[in-house]
Amino acid sequence: MAGIFHTTLGLRTALRYLSPHCTLSSPARLLPLDFPRPFLSPISGRCGVCSRKLHAGADGPKPSPAAAPERLPFSRVTQEDLAFFRKTLPGRAITDPDLLEANNVDWLQSVRGFSEVLLRPQTTEEVSQILRYCNSRNLAVNPQGGNTGLVGGSVPVYDEIILSTALMNNILTFDSVSGILTCQAGCVLENLSLYLEERDYIMPLDLGAKGSCHIGGNVATNAGGLRLLRYGSLRGTVLGLEVVLADGRVLDCLATLRKDNTGYDLKQLFIGSEGTLGVITAVSILCPRKPKAVNVVFLGCETFEQLLQTFQLCRGMLGEILSAFEFLDRGCMSLLNTHLKLPNPITDCPFYIVIETAGSNPTHDEEKLHNFLEEAMTSSMVTDGTVATEDTKIKALWSMRERVTEALTHDGFTYKYDISLPVERIYQLVTDMKEHLGDRAKNVVGYGHVGDGNLHLNITSPAKDPALLAAIEPFVYEWTAGCHGSISAEHGLGLKKRNYIYYSKPSQAVALMGNIKAMLDPKGILNPYKTLPDNLK
Amino acid sequence: MAGIFHTTLGLRTALRYLSPHCTLSSPARLLPLDFPRPFLSPISGRCGVCSRKLHAGADGPKPSPAAAPERLPFSRVTQEDLAFFRKTLPGRAITDPDLLEANNVDWLQSVRGFSEVLLRPQTTEEVSQILRYCNSRNLAVNPQGGNTGLVGGSVPVYDEIILSTALMNNILTFDSVSGILTCQAGCVLENLSLYLEERDYIMPLDLGAKGSCHIGGNVATNAGGLRLLRYGSLRGTVLGLEVVLADGRVLDCLATLRKDNTGYDLKQLFIGSEGTLGVITAVSILCPRKPKAVNVVFLGCETFEQLLQTFQLCRGMLGEILSAFEFLDRGCMSLLNTHLKLPNPITDCPFYIVIETAGSNPTHDEEKLHNFLEEAMTSSMVTDGTVATEDTKIKALWSMRERVTEALTHDGFTYKYDISLPVERIYQLVTDMKEHLGDRAKNVVGYGHVGDGNLHLNITSPAKDPALLAAIEPFVYEWTAGCHGSISAEHGLGLKKRNYIYYSKPSQAVALMGNIKAMLDPKGILNPYKTLPDNLK
Repeated sequence: MAGIFHTTLGLRTALRYLSPHCTLSSPARLLPLDFPRPFLSPISGRCGVCSRKLHAGADGPKPSPAAAPERLPFSRVTQEDLAFFRKTLPGRAITDPDLLEANNVDWLQSVRGFSEVLLRPQTTEEVSQILRYCNSRNLAVNPQGGNTGLVGGSVPVYDEIILSTALMNNILTFDSVSGILTCQAGCVLENLSLYLEERDYIMPLDLGAKGSCHIGGNVATNAGGLRLLRYGSLRGTVLGLEVVLADGRVLDCLATLRKDNTGYDLKQLFIGSEGTLGVITAVSILCPRKPKAVNVVFLGCETFEQLLQTFQLCRGMLGEILSAFEFLDRGCMSLLNTHLKLPNPITDCPFYIVIETAGSNPTHDEEKLHNFLEEAMTSSMVTDGTVATEDTKIKALWSMRERVTEALTHDGFTYKYDISLPVERIYQLVTDMKEHLGDRAKNVVGYGHVGDGNLHLNITSPAKDPALLAAIEPFVYEWTAGCHGSISAEHGLGLKKRNYIYYSKPSQAVALMGNIKAMLDPKGILNPYKTLPDNLK
Repeated sequence: MAGIFHTTLGLRTALRYLSPHCTLSSPARLLPLDFPRPFLSPISGRCGVCSRKLHAGADGPKPSPAAAPERLPFSRVTQEDLAFFRKTLPGRAITDPDLLEANNVDWLQSVRGFSEVLLRPQTTEEVSQILRYCNSRNLAVNPQGGNTGLVGGSVPVYDEIILSTALMNNILTFDSVSGILTCQAGCVLENLSLYLEERDYIMPLDLGAKGSCHIGGNVATNAGGLRLLRYGSLRGTVLGLEVVLADGRVLDCLATLRKDNTGYDLKQLFIGSEGTLGVITAVSILCPRKPKAVNVVFLGCETFEQLLQTFQLCRGMLGEILSAFEFLDRGCMSLLNTHLKLPNPITDCPFYIVIETAGSNPTHDEEKLHNFLEEAMTSSMVTDGTVATEDTKIKALWSMRERVTEALTHDGFTYKYDISLPVERIYQLVTDMKEHLGDRAKNVVGYGHVGDGNLHLNITSPAKDPALLAAIEPFVYEWTAGCHGSISAEHGLGLKKRNYIYYSKPSQAVALMGNIKAMLDPKGILNPYKTLPDNLK
């Protein structure tokens, strides 16, 4: 394998120094970087080096703010660099293009990088050595967890070296008295959940991508998910982090204490910074006790107003046992029926609610739930519903909410928005967008986390449609900014949303973010082209 | 008043430029800075300018790491400066020494500054103007909330201008659907609690100093308190901050959203940074619903081991309704009896527990509590106890825990430590300290937040006792570091603990904190001599 790569690498390195607009019969991995790319399209015939002309050229259309900026003047990987990586990570410096394919393309298949090197360290010391080397050589690095991000933050944009946490998957300690877990960054969320459940605890976060996502990536993106309503954000539950800085310094903030007010809380800098300030190598996190009883209710409402009334009633009557209050609209249900053949568990309604309770006393919880449902039905807030207490049925009901994202991928090209708003406004955006787009969109649907004021707005089209996109943006961002909302509640900014940051943050704040980036990563080698807007560079 | 001050200021300004070791009959406000000063002692007869000789002189004893460093070369307030402040804050630029007295001395009366200017802005714009001016003039500023801090962080060390938030006490908005409160930084915590309780909500934090402390100060010090076990830390509940930076720039991060992943979470930098990075002017915070039922139990245990068993049982059986699990030892009870005449509500025991439940269904809560108490009594974990459901009795039981700090102030000079440890180790430190000190201390007592692994270790002595201090420190810090604990769980570092930071944080982390300070406050005018160790300066 190494021999084959040597040849290939030599060829590619040479190709990059060809003059612009050269054409060649290239393999898929040499695709030009036509960002944003909804789906991987056939080979275009242009070589990688030309790609930047697609964005900067005076003869082309004006680039979208989501498009990749020009490649920054990082070094390119040489044979000497590869020799260093192979020596540092024996057998774990991957250069086989086929093996690299999955790491170069995001889960949505919407963006593609063309990295030729995948590094798979096992220890913090190895990560430190890699970064120290890359920083000294001015080589860009794309830290990668489970590659489940939705904003193009988890894959390279050009030829950044991919630094995967996949082999850093050891649980380091678990304290069964305090519920504090310490583990390497590459542990898969679901594996951690299974480990904890055997010990009568649960992870404080849960999300659809749990089978693939890494805890380090969850922390790096400040993942929200389905349990935030109950257990709060990672900013409260993450107790410590170990982070390797751009120059290879190891920052040990891996405390396992619930409280620590000795100086500035540095770990917060790295939570949600999408790998642009450091590479998280280990995490300690406070885990709640496994609830003794879990119940799930699936309800239908005639109006969003009734849905909100149900939420208020629910908060009052279920109180401390309420662990999730999610919703989907009729459009989502239709996609689940059509594309995934999931039948509607209740009668057809404009809005559906998924409520989960989790508590320490099954009898009390059932009584609370019964009282709540009786009140909700009597007052005609909800029109139909079903309750699940058994694990299989609970999973089935949850899948109606969790699999909407999957159903959307079968409906055509999807424009995805992850908006945070005052809860009473969240559905108005869907209604206004439907009216605004008319019949230009195939489907406009909304679902999300009512309890957190977090709407997932999705607009589908038979194929990528620049005219449709122009109708959606900046309309959606202006609408959100008009309500002082966030244009990215939980997905982050990554590549796709970086230039829209000003809709949610004042320029003073963005400038300060730039200062922090410059302080921690002066050469900008960590996850370049992500999170921060181009005009800071 | 202004006229009098002019004369006084002129005199003092002149005095500061006298040669060292001059003596004069000075008023109390010209006390030399003999840090740390447990109680305000009589006037020593030395003038302010000599104070640094007390710390740096070769002929004196080696200064304690808690002692103030030399005064940094900030400008001194001139008549022109005063004219600016008076024009900017008409009637709110205070220079009357008597009015300044309470702002120069901390609540414990353990440290004193000698500021001659107290500024009381009402608006963010005024704070901005003040800081822009002070930064350009290189004038040091001591931001001050309710001045209830315990580590000398809230009062000036030398002649820093005191910037008080006392008049910034307006509630800006409250959303009764989401429970999100936005208010100015100077709102007193108890006033916010009363405001919210009328609206069926509560503040997510509660602490003994609630009658005086300001929410801005709470956030600036990342206050923990009695509800952290249930509602988590301010890092999760604070949704937004407005902060004025050292140069007067206003950083508007005053979001009212539960989720926002657009870039780095800048507000986290200011939470717990003790006013050294910026002045918090407004806060938005997520408030929980007011519980429909609150119960408090006061229990006695024979051993700390039994207390921990009770905690584990309690977490399992009370689960989601558990809102506090606090303890005090026999020594604390004795101080309450002796100094505050508070009678022990149960029979004498080595350890006492205060458990609070808060829930949405009184019947369910009482049933859970009953089952728990039956189990705890049957299994002999606890030996005696009493339950309160009525407000007056609840308050009376809580005062046994909340008033320990006050009782200690009557017992003599108190050496205070606020330690975070793995919960199973917290009382071992008290036991070891008792053995270590033998009869050198008057009393060695422990109390605190079991649920958070947070011990308040207090050692009293008839008077300030350097030999006793030398026996306590660094013993207490080394013991804590040996368990990977924190030497300040919730009190912060302030002036007194700043040089001990290395017991809980690696030098890489402290160096990075220094970089952050230099980035945000390059002249170092904000709360100098606090939080960061001297060797960074």
